[in-house]
Amino acid sequence: MNKLRIPNHIGIIPDGNRRWAVENGLEKDKGYENGIEAGTKLCELMKQYGIKEATFYGFTTANNKRPKYQREAFTKACIKSVFEIAEKDANILVVGNDKTDIFPKELLKFSNKRVNYGKSNININFLINYDWKQDIGKDMVSKEIPRLDLIIRWGGQKRLSGFLPVQSVYSDFYFVDNYWPNFKEQDFIDALNWYQTCDVTLGG
Amino acid sequence: MNKLRIPNHIGIIPDGNRRWAVENGLEKDKGYENGIEAGTKLCELMKQYGIKEATFYGFTTANNKRPKYQREAFTKACIKSVFEIAEKDANILVVGNDKTDIFPKELLKFSNKRVNYGKSNININFLINYDWKQDIGKDMVSKEIPRLDLIIRWGGQKRLSGFLPVQSVYSDFYFVDNYWPNFKEQDFIDALNWYQTCDVTLGG
Repeated sequence: MNKLRIPNHIGIIPDGNRRWAVENGLEKDKGYENGIEAGTKLCELMKQYGIKEATFYGFTTANNKRPKYQREAFTKACIKSVFEIAEKDANILVVGNDKTDIFPKELLKFSNKRVNYGKSNININFLINYDWKQDIGKDMVSKEIPRLDLIIRWGGQKRLSGFLPVQSVYSDFYFVDNYWPNFKEQDFIDALNWYQTCDVTLGG
Repeated sequence: MNKLRIPNHIGIIPDGNRRWAVENGLEKDKGYENGIEAGTKLCELMKQYGIKEATFYGFTTANNKRPKYQREAFTKACIKSVFEIAEKDANILVVGNDKTDIFPKELLKFSNKRVNYGKSNININFLINYDWKQDIGKDMVSKEIPRLDLIIRWGGQKRLSGFLPVQSVYSDFYFVDNYWPNFKEQDFIDALNWYQTCDVTLGG
């Protein structure tokens, strides 16, 4: 493990929750709650590997166009995920549009203000009610979030879907076919091994 | 061919020129001139498939940090590529920082002003001396360039390297291992076939 080149900051796109639910004969909204454990496990793993910072794609203002029962489900899962990860010791920051009732009041205390839990060395950020258009405007809501070295997306799609357009300009992308609730430790290890093969040039 | 869902706008990242040169026992700067024919062939192919618009990643302000002989080589190749593609009939637009001597004077007439050749139905844009930081600021230099549906990158790397951060937020990414000078028609056909499997949700 010592020889690995460790990314400073990893972006996590935990996609495929609804498709997982359908595949398992469940209603679409049931996918989200089945992804919470995956997030907690991944955070533990990132700590073991010495990752200093990671940002999870929670939900976006565009996602809010989905049916209400789905919105409620992903909002609830995001809240639960933040608190379960905090409980395992992490420094939590939430970024997004908190000027609306859609932003969960339970997460207001983390909004643009990092809250440290335990004596943790890992910063975990969540994008909650995030709007990429707002973020590239003059009020860059994500200004506390540094450049992303590696972005890992679960669920088989090969796109960013508005995830931190500024921080992702020089990121390397790793795509996992598994749906997020099927997260395996090996997915992360494969991503990290693949990252070893990427040279970082920043265009130079 | 009629049944294909055709992307409105394709981004082309023609990477791997220097690695191709090294692999072929040439100096690094020789890769660029060997990629010109690839660009012309790809444009012809896109016209056949009814693509209405494509944007080529020429060079960036970050690329200008490279050694002078390489800079001269990629600048020359970009100029030649623009004129060879124009000659085959395309509506040409060049976007980038033209307020410096690094911007080739031969391309000034296309800068932020589309020039139509022949009776072409295809818009071909080139990013020349492009700076993503300038582009997301209040003077969005690429404002004439629409949303990208599909981005194809040659050369094996899985990243955007600052390519149109705003237009790429909802794009699907297709990565080709071939170095750009080894471009094959099949690369494009594979990309288009893969694109058929992507659903477009724009986050909804």
